[in-house]
Amino acid sequence: MSDVIETTPGWLTPGELELARARMPIVYVEAVPVRVDESGQVTRIGLLLRIAPDGTVSRALVSGRVLHHERVRDALLRHLEKDLGPVALPLIPASPQPFTVAEYFPTPGVTPYHDPRQHAVALAYIVPVAGDCRPRQDALDLVWFSPQEAASPLVQQEMPGGQGVLLKQALAHVGCLP
Amino acid sequence: MSDVIETTPGWLTPGELELARARMPIVYVEAVPVRVDESGQVTRIGLLLRIAPDGTVSRALVSGRVLHHERVRDALLRHLEKDLGPVALPLIPASPQPFTVAEYFPTPGVTPYHDPRQHAVALAYIVPVAGDCRPRQDALDLVWFSPQEAASPLVQQEMPGGQGVLLKQALAHVGCLP
Amino acid sequence: MSDVIETTPGWLTPGELELARARMPIVYVEAVPVRVDESGQVTRIGLLLRIAPDGTVSRALVSGRVLHHERVRDALLRHLEKDLGPVALPLIPASPQPFTVAEYFPTPGVTPYHDPRQHAVALAYIVPVAGDCRPRQDALDLVWFSPQEAASPLVQQEMPGGQGVLLKQALAHVGCLP
Amino acid sequence: MSDVIETTPGWLTPGELELARARMPIVYVEAVPVRVDESGQVTRIGLLLRIAPDGTVSRALVSGRVLHHERVRDALLRHLEKDLGPVALPLIPASPQPFTVAEYFPTPGVTPYHDPRQHAVALAYIVPVAGDCRPRQDALDLVWFSPQEAASPLVQQEMPGGQGVLLKQALAHVGCLP
Repeated sequence: MSDVIETTPGWLTPGELELARARMPIVYVEAVPVRVDESGQVTRIGLLLRIAPDGTVSRALVSGRVLHHERVRDALLRHLEKDLGPVALPLIPASPQPFTVAEYFPTPGVTPYHDPRQHAVALAYIVPVAGDCRPRQDALDLVWFSPQEAASPLVQQEMPGGQGVLLKQALAHVGCLP
Repeated sequence: MSDVIETTPGWLTPGELELARARMPIVYVEAVPVRVDESGQVTRIGLLLRIAPDGTVSRALVSGRVLHHERVRDALLRHLEKDLGPVALPLIPASPQPFTVAEYFPTPGVTPYHDPRQHAVALAYIVPVAGDCRPRQDALDLVWFSPQEAASPLVQQEMPGGQGVLLKQALAHVGCLP
Repeated sequence: MSDVIETTPGWLTPGELELARARMPIVYVEAVPVRVDESGQVTRIGLLLRIAPDGTVSRALVSGRVLHHERVRDALLRHLEKDLGPVALPLIPASPQPFTVAEYFPTPGVTPYHDPRQHAVALAYIVPVAGDCRPRQDALDLVWFSPQEAASPLVQQEMPGGQGVLLKQALAHVGCLP
Repeated sequence: MSDVIETTPGWLTPGELELARARMPIVYVEAVPVRVDESGQVTRIGLLLRIAPDGTVSRALVSGRVLHHERVRDALLRHLEKDLGPVALPLIPASPQPFTVAEYFPTPGVTPYHDPRQHAVALAYIVPVAGDCRPRQDALDLVWFSPQEAASPLVQQEMPGGQGVLLKQALAHVGCLP
């Protein structure tokens, strides 16, 4: 999940965020960017490529916090624009019903998801993306995978914290689990 | 639900369709065409206006049979193109999970849905429509309503067979039930 | 939504909770307790009756916070046991997919849901209840309504903050919206 | 999917069923029987063991046709009672929303599901089972597997026609995909 900390005035300072993270679950959204054909069938899944300071390569879904007084759909749009650029044209779902809820615990093993920094409750959505994606911020690149590639051990092992499991759940939801 | 009978060779003749309708449930798809804003929020619902031979005005969702060897998503696309025209640009859902299943019985009162011709099991989907809608065939017009108007008694009473209930279920699913 | 503040050591003090509520969205669960027949059809909806210090009567769904390091399903079970008693035998859903997400804003009108105390993001579930319900704590009583009664203006006007809308969404989801 | 042909008077004769199967999609329900703990977490998945006339061992979900004038929830109950016995106490879902729709085509490769006899559109549900299961009819036995075992290659290869994929989709939906 994104390491970016929002510091907009009126929201949490980094210190307050650290405190809150130790005391209560944090609301997150997660988006699985997909390309679809004319019939809505998923043809490609987009994963962000990140390279950590120690050189470790990892792949990630679009993910981030919901801010105070921000709607879930606005948080989805904001994080997609931040990670995919301003002309990605994401089609935010009309319904707030997520395909699943991923519960990231600071303790590994409670659920399939793990985040050492916090207890995050993430609402997960499939988001078709129609435009050009130009990753910004800490994302180096966005790579499109076929459903088969996305579910392969090679890609799965590059997705830490259980995001590989979440990706497979997304593939199952759209009927593309190999 | 549509009265149109497909007679493509290899499928059912009208006589065979009548026989089948008396003996087994028929698979249908139903689509609720919507306009959405940038955040995916539904702003308008599109209803087909029909005028029966006796002059009765009614409003309808996009609806029709799934044919033999046709995928649900292809049936959705076909009926949307048939009713809304070739440049409506419907965004067929990536997931086959419908927001509900409407069971139309030939006997009124078993469920909220009623179809005197048949027992139809209809998979219902919300379908954002991005392009221009130019109704064809037996539909006279497509009229866009706000969620408040769509749920109003005036519109509800013009939707026979329980499609008004299905429309309210769609509004509930997208968080727009007044 | 419940006014009860959990003060278990290690979680938030009332002062810290107030601070957090002013700064970030709070994760909630909401449960619609239902009675079902053998075929799973909903026959009754259970609503908590509350009488405020000023004598105002209100009806409420089961609702409460998810605590730090608590799974959503454990929070559901805890709040159902707290409000319905120890022998209610609630059947917590196998899937974490909620039927909707209700976003309560401190500012009225942003969404259909309003909570003057906080921005709450509530995951909403239908929960069949098989046993005896013996409300505890601040709930005076649990009253079972038919779907028709639950959607009636009389009951709806006794459900503040948009919980009446959420109840209608639940009825729509189980195919019981009148 | 079940080979059992219902011949109740008033429905289809075997000959008529064969004709219908060649001409139109057939409505099916499929149930994934599960054991859940107090918090609703799935602990075991029940699979029917079948031995074909040629000695081939296969495992199957509960599956069968929806009859004319039969509700989906009644079809679910009927097939569960037929396959698991009269005291299995299945908890049929309150909502008609399936977790997915599996489209079985007579031609392999169109979808992940294949049925040489017919085009079946199957509404798939997770069904917690609380009582004793005593398989009847052509099922030899019901065996309970852990989620890990159910998703293993060993079990998957014993599930023909794509039911192994459907089982993995069910595991994904309940958050138990390994």
